[in-house]
Amino acid sequence: MYKRELIYLGPEGTFSEEACLEYVSAHQNLCVPGRYYPTIREVVTAAAVESSKLAIVPLENSYEGAVTVTLDLLAGDTGGLRICGETVLRVHHQLMAVSGTRLKDVSCVLSHPQALGQCQEYLAANLPGVRQTPTASTAEAARLAAAAESSSGGAWAAICTTQAGERCGLILLASEIQDSEENCTRFIILGHHSTIPTGSDKTSLVFTTADKPGALYQILGILAEQGINLTKIESRPTRKRLGEYLFYVDLEGHCADKAVATALKRMTEMTAWMRVLGSYPRAV
Amino acid sequence: MYKRELIYLGPEGTFSEEACLEYVSAHQNLCVPGRYYPTIREVVTAAAVESSKLAIVPLENSYEGAVTVTLDLLAGDTGGLRICGETVLRVHHQLMAVSGTRLKDVSCVLSHPQALGQCQEYLAANLPGVRQTPTASTAEAARLAAAAESSSGGAWAAICTTQAGERCGLILLASEIQDSEENCTRFIILGHHSTIPTGSDKTSLVFTTADKPGALYQILGILAEQGINLTKIESRPTRKRLGEYLFYVDLEGHCADKAVATALKRMTEMTAWMRVLGSYPRAV
Repeated sequence: MYKRELIYLGPEGTFSEEACLEYVSAHQNLCVPGRYYPTIREVVTAAAVESSKLAIVPLENSYEGAVTVTLDLLAGDTGGLRICGETVLRVHHQLMAVSGTRLKDVSCVLSHPQALGQCQEYLAANLPGVRQTPTASTAEAARLAAAAESSSGGAWAAICTTQAGERCGLILLASEIQDSEENCTRFIILGHHSTIPTGSDKTSLVFTTADKPGALYQILGILAEQGINLTKIESRPTRKRLGEYLFYVDLEGHCADKAVATALKRMTEMTAWMRVLGSYPRAV
Repeated sequence: MYKRELIYLGPEGTFSEEACLEYVSAHQNLCVPGRYYPTIREVVTAAAVESSKLAIVPLENSYEGAVTVTLDLLAGDTGGLRICGETVLRVHHQLMAVSGTRLKDVSCVLSHPQALGQCQEYLAANLPGVRQTPTASTAEAARLAAAAESSSGGAWAAICTTQAGERCGLILLASEIQDSEENCTRFIILGHHSTIPTGSDKTSLVFTTADKPGALYQILGILAEQGINLTKIESRPTRKRLGEYLFYVDLEGHCADKAVATALKRMTEMTAWMRVLGSYPRAV
């Protein structure tokens, strides 16, 4: 069988690469690791135009919440891409710096905004008042911390994976500094192929409601009537008017299941706009 | 009457300062402009410990969605602060750089991540492939763009307000570069005082549901029964387990209104945890 390339958000050493490798190792019949791209938008666009590619992108984190870039892309022009899988990666954050750096020398902590967000309690307790600088990725934070000239102004430290830090010659200052012990990121896999029901699936949708009181309540009622459990609801602005939202819903079941198919048909009639993003085997 | 100080997210030249000044000018009996703080967390903390202060903080943008830091703070220890007002600021983004810079010279665009997010279409069309660097605020972006040495590597440009750019000696490269014509940010005002019903109010809540199918649907049903319109629903992770959410709801009416009071009482019984964040005159 022809194997697809699983492309991801780079550079090397990011959590996305780790998730990509984990997914490939669990789905060796389906895919091989592909190349990386600098932004989530480019990952999705590359997979949209080439059916030999699958994309793996982060969707939500148990601490920071939704990855809004991914949600917004899913509601835009995805070139027929569907969600065909999900995987959950447990996130570990390390504080790393060049050899010889002590914690009290650190004058600046660099990392991706979500990683900084996931370590706020540690930083407030251990590096109060120290400047936090956002970078494009955790791997770039490691690269910048390694490149920074140490000066009387103090040293730079990166929040990154052990692998990314060591690749840049950094050593560990503090390990497992994430605020929550349950720090997990959920990734979705986007592709052009259909999935078959496995008996333990999820279906993801996005819709807007008619602008009238109780519209969302009535739509959720369709799911309740069919005994379908909602595993997630998320809202994003429509970008047309403040107070108008897109709703992203994950529900239990496959769109080929009778109850789900019935509910989707009724929801199509009741919503102002709706798109089924895909049905896929559930990981959580 | 004693006037409270309205404190905000600085530095000077940010949209928060603009929103602060607009709110003060519309509520001159209530407050005067106060000092600014470097983070949203510090604004909220300063108002929590001192009842002579009111805090104004951004809550959501019509383009980028929720300001998750603010939502997370509202569900944490707010020291008795309540939402006692809201205001909406229309956002204008300008691309600014040092005199003599042409658009084609720009090798790096700096701004707050939300401002960068709000100009993605412009940047993709006019500055494709140009590096985007996040900064702590739009005002800091202006300061950094003004301080950057022009080199063969190209010039730096900032996305900021006209005032912030001019304060740093920058000139306009392109005006009104925001993707959406309806780019508005909604701010809330936090204080220790109670508000009285005005006939056009909103009430904000946050709650978690019992972990059972249809729990959210049943809770929304309480509002539907009382004929109360939901103006917003937003979810955030509980930070305990992936797939567990806090729900933030805005509804029409004041908690002193009979229908709202009845609904809140029933919701308290039906939710696993609930907090009324405040009732206040509606601006949108």
